[in-house]
Amino acid sequence: MVIKEKIEKLRTLMRERKIDAYIVQTSDPHQSEYLADYYKTREFITGFTGSAGVFVITANKAGLWTDSRYFIQAAKELDNSGIDLYKMGVEGYPTYEEFLINEVPEFGRIGFNGLCFSIADYKSLSKKMGNRMLVSNLDYVEKIWEDRPASPNGKVWIYEEKYTGESLKSKLNRLREEMKRKEYDYYFIGAPEDICYLLNIRGNDVDYNPVVLSYMLISDKRAYLCIEEDKIDDDLKEYFKENEIDVQSYDYIFQLLKDIKGQNRIFLDPTRTNVKVFDSINSNVRVSTGINITSWMKAIKNETELENEKKAYLIDCATLVKFFNWVETGTHTGNLTESIASKKLHDLRKENESFIEDSFETIAGYKENAAIVHYSPTKAFSKTLENKGLFLVDSGAHYLEGTTDITRTIALGELSEEEKTDYTLVLKSHMMLAECKFKNKTTGKRLDMIAKYPLWKNGKDFFHGTGHGVGFVLGVHEGPQSISQRSDIEFVEGMTTSIEPGLYIEDSHGIRIESEAYVKKEYENEFGKFLGFELLTYIPIDTRPIRKDLLENWEIEWINNYNKKCEEKLSSYLEGNDLLYLKESCKAI
Amino acid sequence: MVIKEKIEKLRTLMRERKIDAYIVQTSDPHQSEYLADYYKTREFITGFTGSAGVFVITANKAGLWTDSRYFIQAAKELDNSGIDLYKMGVEGYPTYEEFLINEVPEFGRIGFNGLCFSIADYKSLSKKMGNRMLVSNLDYVEKIWEDRPASPNGKVWIYEEKYTGESLKSKLNRLREEMKRKEYDYYFIGAPEDICYLLNIRGNDVDYNPVVLSYMLISDKRAYLCIEEDKIDDDLKEYFKENEIDVQSYDYIFQLLKDIKGQNRIFLDPTRTNVKVFDSINSNVRVSTGINITSWMKAIKNETELENEKKAYLIDCATLVKFFNWVETGTHTGNLTESIASKKLHDLRKENESFIEDSFETIAGYKENAAIVHYSPTKAFSKTLENKGLFLVDSGAHYLEGTTDITRTIALGELSEEEKTDYTLVLKSHMMLAECKFKNKTTGKRLDMIAKYPLWKNGKDFFHGTGHGVGFVLGVHEGPQSISQRSDIEFVEGMTTSIEPGLYIEDSHGIRIESEAYVKKEYENEFGKFLGFELLTYIPIDTRPIRKDLLENWEIEWINNYNKKCEEKLSSYLEGNDLLYLKESCKAI
Repeated sequence: MVIKEKIEKLRTLMRERKIDAYIVQTSDPHQSEYLADYYKTREFITGFTGSAGVFVITANKAGLWTDSRYFIQAAKELDNSGIDLYKMGVEGYPTYEEFLINEVPEFGRIGFNGLCFSIADYKSLSKKMGNRMLVSNLDYVEKIWEDRPASPNGKVWIYEEKYTGESLKSKLNRLREEMKRKEYDYYFIGAPEDICYLLNIRGNDVDYNPVVLSYMLISDKRAYLCIEEDKIDDDLKEYFKENEIDVQSYDYIFQLLKDIKGQNRIFLDPTRTNVKVFDSINSNVRVSTGINITSWMKAIKNETELENEKKAYLIDCATLVKFFNWVETGTHTGNLTESIASKKLHDLRKENESFIEDSFETIAGYKENAAIVHYSPTKAFSKTLENKGLFLVDSGAHYLEGTTDITRTIALGELSEEEKTDYTLVLKSHMMLAECKFKNKTTGKRLDMIAKYPLWKNGKDFFHGTGHGVGFVLGVHEGPQSISQRSDIEFVEGMTTSIEPGLYIEDSHGIRIESEAYVKKEYENEFGKFLGFELLTYIPIDTRPIRKDLLENWEIEWINNYNKKCEEKLSSYLEGNDLLYLKESCKAI
Repeated sequence: MVIKEKIEKLRTLMRERKIDAYIVQTSDPHQSEYLADYYKTREFITGFTGSAGVFVITANKAGLWTDSRYFIQAAKELDNSGIDLYKMGVEGYPTYEEFLINEVPEFGRIGFNGLCFSIADYKSLSKKMGNRMLVSNLDYVEKIWEDRPASPNGKVWIYEEKYTGESLKSKLNRLREEMKRKEYDYYFIGAPEDICYLLNIRGNDVDYNPVVLSYMLISDKRAYLCIEEDKIDDDLKEYFKENEIDVQSYDYIFQLLKDIKGQNRIFLDPTRTNVKVFDSINSNVRVSTGINITSWMKAIKNETELENEKKAYLIDCATLVKFFNWVETGTHTGNLTESIASKKLHDLRKENESFIEDSFETIAGYKENAAIVHYSPTKAFSKTLENKGLFLVDSGAHYLEGTTDITRTIALGELSEEEKTDYTLVLKSHMMLAECKFKNKTTGKRLDMIAKYPLWKNGKDFFHGTGHGVGFVLGVHEGPQSISQRSDIEFVEGMTTSIEPGLYIEDSHGIRIESEAYVKKEYENEFGKFLGFELLTYIPIDTRPIRKDLLENWEIEWINNYNKKCEEKLSSYLEGNDLLYLKESCKAI
């Protein structure tokens, strides 16, 4: 079925129910970062394969809204589909909300599938739409998607306490104490990462996140897990029984919510709760909202998680050393492409016994491709590596011991002065933030300023976040904390964050240097409690692109110390050529 | 009349009107930073002379709330008065609002004089008091203050355009354009600094701020100035007539506000509008609130103001060089005290032709006294300067050319290692912020982080703001911008700010290094618009306390460059010994 046919079918369905506009978001019922094939509805309708976008259709218009990462790709994929591309953040293009206001008359009807629409988005849309009516129970895609893939059905497994460091019972107790303190009678969890954290289970329902799509409803006495029954085996049933987790079918969550009596108070996270869930709650039940309680809990890593995470980084960093050695050798052949390199990295990781899966799609950008922030090579579009310029590799994996997310940018040969200068500035930014000591509860937006200092001093900047929390064998991007211009979330002991400043010069080169760090106490004295970062990532920082004349003495010392530690920590994981390559990479400047 | 009698009289008045508690704030009808004697009502009642505090009295209790700056002084001054000291920010002491909740029964009555109470404070109090009733029209102090000083009656003068750089007409036009854009029919101004800025006038009603207590009400067609008539002479009357400023008596503001017809929209700043003013506005007039429009206008300095301000700094910095030379010579006599030094500085400033008045009370703290952040010596308590330790002087003046605010800390002789280390850290903090380049609209809380970086790295901190705007021959502390942990106000071109990190070690020593800077454009390129600081203050930074081993190369360069510029800029203002002292002070390290 071509796109035009799908659009015709949608319009027919819309006419039947007098719907003026229909929205298809990029979302599943849990607002997951990555979608199972079953939930790739926007891709099915539009043919656009990017990871972000909103599709809106009216009686005579159809549009796709996406951001600058995907302008070129979307234009290609939408060609001749009858769907217009609306470039987000570009002047002259209305937002999809503005489009709806223009195209839908007052008291007109706007439809969507509430199951794949968060209540945060719903409320924001509703406010903007004024007198227009939102109809949230229309799953039109299901009606026209004939060969729809099966819904995700990954097996669930128990994630042992030797990795998680805390039992399900203990986590549930802590959660219930918090619920009691806040006077919540019920707590609804729609976020699969939170459920997996709480229950010490993992699954395999979506790419890159080892989670199981499920819901939970927790009260003082009961804890319901709503999940497709065939995902769990007898051992798991036994485990849940022992821990007094009441297992119900996936869709039973709606009934459970309907059964909550009025005057009870329920807590939920509006960014991780879909409209259908919310509509199941009786109107006289009192609703409190905020960031998931379990998100705050899992953001603080315990000692076992930390020790495991350190092991995961050593495994992964050693693998990356092998990879970069292989790349440098392979480049000389003239046959190595970004895409082949990317595949090789996956294969090398897979050789590690405790490897689970990649934690996101590898970004392997050579020269100007590295300036495209979320670039991933494909077989069709993949640059051949040469003995010059910079190669940026941002990748990571889930191991049983933990999750990694690492970026290094290396020189494949001769560099321009500009490449060297920019590399050195990014490195300065990285070191300045890594060395930062800060008062307990310093916000992400204040920390962000530190990374910007060396870049801004030179009139340069980058436009992505400077750091994000990293999940423990869950999502690689984990909140609530982040280091970015807008984050008011306070940093406390036990959180993790990436430190990943970059610089991107269109059509020329891109640089990013990313390590993960753990937040620990540094001092406590009459001035208060001070925190700092302990790095978890130990893979050498390439010193070949450095302009030493731009560095202060402490910075030179920092680089030499860091690379020396890399050599100490990784040597025992490597041998032969790889070990020689490591030693060469770690030489002092 | 002793304090106890005053308290008895207050209680009698309270009984007559069935008032359960009565509040006396430290405020005038304009929420001025400094109070005219006439408005020192809290001081009259309590005998406590500090600059900040709230007095609350009930039928059987009386308390004064003040902050840590005044704990020792207040304890002394309240001794045997029957008034209890409540230490703000100290555990175990209720806030005055908590005290009121404890002492006043529900539906009880809490009184105060609404003329000297901002509506921002009123709203905050009202929210906390629940069912208790606030009675805002009780001026009890007036009834018991027999020998009350005359209300302030300083003469008003026209501040020439060669200083202000923009005519009254032009400012008023810009203001009215903004009112039109925002759809405000009326704009009420209660802040004397804003009125003086707008009208290009200055006055002499309070210490340290050359302003006149007055109100304005502005509409599209009319501009009323409400002011005591005997403060203005015929020239001024003519000036106001020419500029179509309608002069009315001071109290006529209440009538003007009453006359505003319903459905009109008035804009006012709740932190600079008193309750009596607010109560005069008809309830069907629509009220919009925010920071005074004129505060945003005056925060951006024009080129004439900037050029004048630079002159003011040269005059004042040269004066400070003479002063520090005199101090170092005088210290050897063994007869020089903080208080004598402070008086001498005032006398030296007065010798400058264009001197108007000091811009705040000089802080001159030697050794451990410098650790008391707002310390001012008195004749009774004044340390003698010796040939050792650090001497901190924070002072400033209004000249016709502009307003200054400068802190330097100098070594009077031998220093401990701790003093040297702390001095060097404060200097590092000062330089790091002074050198900061930042994106247009960076907030004060983000800039604050930069100054904290070198201190936090060493487990040290200070607890006052890092920078404040400086008024142009108005208040020395001027908003809306500030560099501090809490400020979300964005920095833009043309603003000024102090840069004043410090370190305070109780019972030992205190250090602060403060210069004023102007915000100017640095670069504009594909990454956006970058701003930076241009320093206005040029008086040498004492290099004797520096621990050079703690400095990076760029920092040593910065200090040498800065002191060299001081020599270049100030030499022509000095002669003889003072010139030699300057040259000595500016030597490279």
